[in-house]
Amino acid sequence: MTIINMTRLDSNAADFSTQLKARLAWDASEDLEIHQRVMAIIADVRNLGDDAVIEYTNRFDQCQFKKAAELELDKEVLQQAWNSLSAEKADALQTAANRIRAYAEEQKMQSWQYTEEDGTILGQQVTPLDKAGLYVPGGKAAYPSSVLMNAIPAKVAGVGELIMVVPTPQGESNPMVLAAAYLAGVDRVFTIGGAQAVAALAYGTKTIPAVDKIVGPGNIYVATAKKLVYGQVGIDMIAGPSEILVICDGETDPNWIAMDLFSQAEHDENAQAILIAEQDEFLDQVEQSINKLLPEMERAEIIKTSLTTRGAFIKVKDLDKAAEVANLIAPEHLELSVADPESLCRKIRNAGAIFMGRYTAEALGDYCAGPNHVLPTSSTARYSSPLGVYDFQKRSSLINCSAAGADRLARTASVLARGESLTAHARSAEYRIK
Amino acid sequence: MTIINMTRLDSNAADFSTQLKARLAWDASEDLEIHQRVMAIIADVRNLGDDAVIEYTNRFDQCQFKKAAELELDKEVLQQAWNSLSAEKADALQTAANRIRAYAEEQKMQSWQYTEEDGTILGQQVTPLDKAGLYVPGGKAAYPSSVLMNAIPAKVAGVGELIMVVPTPQGESNPMVLAAAYLAGVDRVFTIGGAQAVAALAYGTKTIPAVDKIVGPGNIYVATAKKLVYGQVGIDMIAGPSEILVICDGETDPNWIAMDLFSQAEHDENAQAILIAEQDEFLDQVEQSINKLLPEMERAEIIKTSLTTRGAFIKVKDLDKAAEVANLIAPEHLELSVADPESLCRKIRNAGAIFMGRYTAEALGDYCAGPNHVLPTSSTARYSSPLGVYDFQKRSSLINCSAAGADRLARTASVLARGESLTAHARSAEYRIK
Repeated sequence: MTIINMTRLDSNAADFSTQLKARLAWDASEDLEIHQRVMAIIADVRNLGDDAVIEYTNRFDQCQFKKAAELELDKEVLQQAWNSLSAEKADALQTAANRIRAYAEEQKMQSWQYTEEDGTILGQQVTPLDKAGLYVPGGKAAYPSSVLMNAIPAKVAGVGELIMVVPTPQGESNPMVLAAAYLAGVDRVFTIGGAQAVAALAYGTKTIPAVDKIVGPGNIYVATAKKLVYGQVGIDMIAGPSEILVICDGETDPNWIAMDLFSQAEHDENAQAILIAEQDEFLDQVEQSINKLLPEMERAEIIKTSLTTRGAFIKVKDLDKAAEVANLIAPEHLELSVADPESLCRKIRNAGAIFMGRYTAEALGDYCAGPNHVLPTSSTARYSSPLGVYDFQKRSSLINCSAAGADRLARTASVLARGESLTAHARSAEYRIK
Repeated sequence: MTIINMTRLDSNAADFSTQLKARLAWDASEDLEIHQRVMAIIADVRNLGDDAVIEYTNRFDQCQFKKAAELELDKEVLQQAWNSLSAEKADALQTAANRIRAYAEEQKMQSWQYTEEDGTILGQQVTPLDKAGLYVPGGKAAYPSSVLMNAIPAKVAGVGELIMVVPTPQGESNPMVLAAAYLAGVDRVFTIGGAQAVAALAYGTKTIPAVDKIVGPGNIYVATAKKLVYGQVGIDMIAGPSEILVICDGETDPNWIAMDLFSQAEHDENAQAILIAEQDEFLDQVEQSINKLLPEMERAEIIKTSLTTRGAFIKVKDLDKAAEVANLIAPEHLELSVADPESLCRKIRNAGAIFMGRYTAEALGDYCAGPNHVLPTSSTARYSSPLGVYDFQKRSSLINCSAAGADRLARTASVLARGESLTAHARSAEYRIK
């Protein structure tokens, strides 16, 4: 029975780029009402501090906190969550954490400097952030893997204090999320969420420390709050719906490809799964697999909506064209399910993460391969990068002039400063001429 | 004659942190009217393309462009600007460009990968942006040094096409700005500015190519437009007023320190210059120098307003305390005018650029030392970095699993995916178990 007819595009068609653009279009426009509500929450938290945080938390999360000290989870609660995990789950989390840490270590930026002939030293000093905040959603969308992916790079960077916030709707918390926080070495955990948690982390209250950067996923209120506090603190990206682009040479088991597409589509109705291949027959086979496997899936309805409204099959004349289309799409996840992924990979400029070869399912990277699963969405891979250790470090330029070096540089600076009519700049430089 | 009495703070005072906070406060709140006007300009450029760009350019810049092709400057115009420079100016620009390029080369990120025992390869592929846009202000605030500082890192990164926009109010252009664009290797130059230029670069028109990231300084309309197109394209930071913090051990010529403070204050009335020292006597001497030198300065009025309304002298008990205060302020520019800048530098965590030793005036770094003069302002050095080659590069994670590696990882991914009730993820992984 055919449940899903995949939308098909042909990269040779005259209107291909228009059609593709329409399929990729994602309306991320602001909701003015939400914007205003979030602004009010932020203002309240800035003005009233803990009292506002308690009030909003009790109202939105149906909790009964009476004083701010109750908002912090005791370290022993985290440890208990870890201790109570089944051996299978504990092992899996530990394996994932070890691999994420090993990869993160490779990303760590180092300070450097060099000395010029006249003794002048130039360089860059790399330091970790003093404090970082990690937002973790509560309820259904609570993913322990996200805790590891956000917290471990921060700890590897050497962040002084990593503060996690996670709401506990009706007082309920997810033990695996708390266990992951324990395993990742999160320093403090507060049971708050929503815009009020973001505001508290950005501006600080008596109980909740102000941080330098806030990372982690959240709903529209959280995303709006992050945008609004940006500048007061740093933020990571604002993520759109998750996407996968699979390029297949037609030699991978169609069931594998169908399930790889499902693994993206099951996230939510707006998730996007696209397959590129050279052969109509292979696209037909994958469509058959989709229709065969769909009824077995627990999230069949979500997958169906996602594939029907946002999915696509794109036919190309060869793999070079496939790479070109991939660079246009700039996908969050790119699977190269082909015989020679290395040479195809060299043609890819825009992608968050590249999963090379038939064995490398995106799901392996989502959990435990090592690289981060927080990736640029909505074509932003054209200019941004996966979350990494470097997001928790910053650089300071170093300039240390010798007397001879200053003399030399001052002569150049003087000419340029006077050319820009900035005479205090010029005179400050000229004082250093011998 | 005393013209300026510097505001003095004492880091030992009980209310020091409140006082300091008040002095640093900078209101960057949005102007709703400007916001709406800029939104309308962006909408027009998206809908009407070149026609809107021409209309706004003619209106705001008092120009008489008739067709879009006239907006582009011929390469020969740039070369002529370069050829017509005096030898002194050409030498100075060339020296600065060479040093900026040499430093930028050191910053370039490289791709890396490693192979695990089972043959699985993990890595990160670094690629340059396809296209970058560089905004350059026209008129008074036209700084050729800014063209070099923004354009050279982009070219060193290997950006495919670097497109500069610079308005020409009443048809006038700054030859030194065009010469700097020629020297830096800018690929195309359009004589447009304001929000309409930012919108054209973000969305593209028939004549002006859409870019992946827009960098460069501009007025409130430009800054607002950059904020609004962020997400469609990347942007660099939104800069606040420029600032300097000088830490002096009391042994530098007070005239030098006064002029270093002036070189920041002359930028504009909102610029901020702060001096930290241990001795009241030294602060007195610098104040005397300020009052002695001020009447000689061409921008005396601006300097006076800046120092009076936003400047400060801070007394500390020792240099350790000075470092602590510097980390709180997280200044854009930090001068360590002390005998042993190396050991003091190791205590600095938050600063855009650090100028070490008495000879290293900030002005040397502003023009030609090598490191970038585009730096994080308004305390954002707590979490962000100088503009650099890395801003024109992005990273893609690479995962290439061997059959054995996939088998191993799939077992872990399966457990974690089922723990998160994402069964398509689990099944996609399980297909790769042997």
